[in-house]
Amino acid sequence: MNHDTGNRECVLGIDLGGTKIATAAVDGTGRILAENEVPSPSRNGEKMLRLFSALTLEALEKLRETGLLVKAVGIAAAGYVLQEEGVLTEAPNIAWRNAPLRKIAAEATGLPTVLDNDANCAAAAERFAGAARGVDNFVYLTLGTGVGGGVYVDGKLLRGHRGMAAELGHVVIDPDGPLCGCGSRGCLEALASGTALGHQGARVAGRYPDTLLLEMTGGDPEAITGRMVAISAERGDEAALEAFKAWSKHLGLGIASLIHVFNPEMVVLGGGVSNSGTLFIDDVRRAVTEHGIPALILGIPIVLSELNGYSGVIGAAALAWEEIDGPKYPGLHM
Amino acid sequence: MNHDTGNRECVLGIDLGGTKIATAAVDGTGRILAENEVPSPSRNGEKMLRLFSALTLEALEKLRETGLLVKAVGIAAAGYVLQEEGVLTEAPNIAWRNAPLRKIAAEATGLPTVLDNDANCAAAAERFAGAARGVDNFVYLTLGTGVGGGVYVDGKLLRGHRGMAAELGHVVIDPDGPLCGCGSRGCLEALASGTALGHQGARVAGRYPDTLLLEMTGGDPEAITGRMVAISAERGDEAALEAFKAWSKHLGLGIASLIHVFNPEMVVLGGGVSNSGTLFIDDVRRAVTEHGIPALILGIPIVLSELNGYSGVIGAAALAWEEIDGPKYPGLHM
Repeated sequence: MNHDTGNRECVLGIDLGGTKIATAAVDGTGRILAENEVPSPSRNGEKMLRLFSALTLEALEKLRETGLLVKAVGIAAAGYVLQEEGVLTEAPNIAWRNAPLRKIAAEATGLPTVLDNDANCAAAAERFAGAARGVDNFVYLTLGTGVGGGVYVDGKLLRGHRGMAAELGHVVIDPDGPLCGCGSRGCLEALASGTALGHQGARVAGRYPDTLLLEMTGGDPEAITGRMVAISAERGDEAALEAFKAWSKHLGLGIASLIHVFNPEMVVLGGGVSNSGTLFIDDVRRAVTEHGIPALILGIPIVLSELNGYSGVIGAAALAWEEIDGPKYPGLHM
Repeated sequence: MNHDTGNRECVLGIDLGGTKIATAAVDGTGRILAENEVPSPSRNGEKMLRLFSALTLEALEKLRETGLLVKAVGIAAAGYVLQEEGVLTEAPNIAWRNAPLRKIAAEATGLPTVLDNDANCAAAAERFAGAARGVDNFVYLTLGTGVGGGVYVDGKLLRGHRGMAAELGHVVIDPDGPLCGCGSRGCLEALASGTALGHQGARVAGRYPDTLLLEMTGGDPEAITGRMVAISAERGDEAALEAFKAWSKHLGLGIASLIHVFNPEMVVLGGGVSNSGTLFIDDVRRAVTEHGIPALILGIPIVLSELNGYSGVIGAAALAWEEIDGPKYPGLHM
């Protein structure tokens, strides 16, 4: 079976997020052949489920009309996923609980269907078509509203006992740190997410009365977001750069611990904040070196994702391909 | 092939530690058929290597004399191990570097030989003949002079890219914590090892002038060891009990993070301090619940090893059996 010939075969990748639902037809080399995106009615769980079914069927129909043979469906969902059962148990930004998404999609489409959480999918995307092509052991972190994780161990996604492993955002790195959404203190997510970057900006802004951060928020430090810190830092704003420096140290500390745990070949950073990677990657590498055991740390590349917003659909597609063909890593065969 | 019939077949497990070298013949059910132990000349690397070869050959000869058929050799070594290469790169308490232990033993004995670090072996021992018999996903922590880790993922030891994974003692849980032997601050090892328990005892002793801890050390808090804290706590000494309480919180915090990372079915605690497990296990479980995400934490047993000092030789033997037979978990077949 050769998926490259004429690109007639593809899988459908679906990314169910708190703000959008994206779908894409992805071929066996990780290329996107067609895509679509709609806002997600995340406050209304039932509406979201209906929309999910409708969008899936609509996407399938369109792809078939263009002559593509859709072989399987992969779903990336933001939340806690029981991977084997195909159930999204809880989604922090979506109003549903215990949604049997795999069953819904499989019944609607009659196709092999897989479900995994968005961070696992993003890690799968890196191995399928991103920075970790053909890498068997790596740690992926997504730095967005929260911090998500995905880990490959010997070429397989680390899923754990019930498919809920790699909640790397909830490794505690400072028990006296800020409160985390999970109820604990000083989780990696509370110190190294995009949200935490905004808080770090708020913390330093007071010492820089002329900072862009305060200009952007009309003087209200509490309104500073991670995105504002990124934009200001790109313009050379001193407060924003200082916020990034402090934030990078936390991230580096967390990464050093994760390298000690997994002895990976590579660490990949994705998510919204990674788009500003050039602003912080050197500081992160420095902090990793500072906290890491040389035998484990030296020579481990810490790199930025280049998949931007597509890691969800591409990763869901990667897992869909795996479901029908076993692991596919085109990077190895080119 | 049935290893139980008459126990004629066995493997040789060797535990190379900083204080002793232990050997044991272990059958296919995890039973020890014969054992031996000598002090380890750990300050003299060359002498240690010679002694290691001599002991291995001597053990083999003795076992053969008693009619046992030794099928393979497993070696557990305290230190950093490149598992695939069979090399002990660095051993904190033994004076050698880059010792090709597997090659030495394989050449001396002519038998299939495996080498792994002591914590991985101890985890293997729990799965072979201990608390985690037949459990596919679990985290093992050894609480001794340091903190070591071993993790099973889907029935296989987590080894990582170069066989150095599961350095769980060097997950940073408090960046403002005490200095760790690795150079970083606030590693799990610096806060939840036996050594750290001694330091915790020193920290609280001042407030309890009548504590056994000061009686034992002639009033010198710096001389308090983890073992003294354990003995005193068993006698109901208040300072020692308080030291255990503080120590348990750190351990529980670390375990919660590890559960978030691995989504295991079980956590097993071994090493010297685990012998005092009844003194701290409830506090540890409480701290895990406090810091953990309910969906991941609830219902995960945190249990104590019952293998005592034998986890090294039994674990080395488990890996030796695996080398020749594939994974063996007699607990499942009994």
